[in-house]
Amino acid sequence: MRLISLLLIIFMSFSAHANIGDMPEEQQLAMQYIKAYTDHDFRSLRHFYNRDSVFFDKTANVKYTGTRHIIEFLTRAHEGVLEYRLNIEHMFNNGSIVVIIGSYRLRGPGDQYGKPGRIIDIAVPGVTTLKFDMGTRRIIEHMDLMDYQTMADQLESQ
Amino acid sequence: MRLISLLLIIFMSFSAHANIGDMPEEQQLAMQYIKAYTDHDFRSLRHFYNRDSVFFDKTANVKYTGTRHIIEFLTRAHEGVLEYRLNIEHMFNNGSIVVIIGSYRLRGPGDQYGKPGRIIDIAVPGVTTLKFDMGTRRIIEHMDLMDYQTMADQLESQ
Repeated sequence: MRLISLLLIIFMSFSAHANIGDMPEEQQLAMQYIKAYTDHDFRSLRHFYNRDSVFFDKTANVKYTGTRHIIEFLTRAHEGVLEYRLNIEHMFNNGSIVVIIGSYRLRGPGDQYGKPGRIIDIAVPGVTTLKFDMGTRRIIEHMDLMDYQTMADQLESQ
Repeated sequence: MRLISLLLIIFMSFSAHANIGDMPEEQQLAMQYIKAYTDHDFRSLRHFYNRDSVFFDKTANVKYTGTRHIIEFLTRAHEGVLEYRLNIEHMFNNGSIVVIIGSYRLRGPGDQYGKPGRIIDIAVPGVTTLKFDMGTRRIIEHMDLMDYQTMADQLESQ
């Protein structure tokens, strides 16, 4: 099971990278945003938000509005993280709404996850939906749906 | 690629069915709802909605509120459909929010899809998010994210 998923992810990641120039403009913008987001590149990330941008984790019912609050939250959430990556399994868009299905790989200190002093390594399945204003190339809404049960199961064994 | 996806779907479907009793209550309720929804069982479906229930296709930006409007829309949308099924690839929940990643298989008359007089057979990747009121077991929000580009590509070749 795990092997098939892995093969699938590798295959999909490869084909996604191979054809990046052929992607719809909205998906290319989404890839640039996700790169800044997972690289903790807050300088680039700022240019994707404005005062009306919304960051919404629908599964956790957590919402932040505006560049400053979103960046503050991400700075806190990503603190000390060694590696953060989104393995894309499927991506599609309808106009300026881009949907990314995949899993977030996170390696870092376990302090925020009830594992102080340990390095944790988890892969959390999730769906990220990005709604852009294509005129200004800013995020109107970043919405996450995350499989926190799988995350908890993985943490338990670490 | 197609074969691996198919194997994945079969495996997931099987394991989902095998363990239905072990599922969290919210996911069991989601399965009952999806069954009524894909079976066009409007009698059962009515019991899942109330006047505040929202049906929201975020990708198409279409929203209906209340039992009557939702049922009217679904009656129209499902008219004449011969087969409608959701192949679940991954399902998870956080409390009363259930997220289902999979693809909707639809076989039916092509009249609504620009193929009058033909029978079409498509599988549309999508994410369905259900938010329940677990007290009343009603839908607060049914939100769809659908890969309409893949749907259009499949329709083109039929």
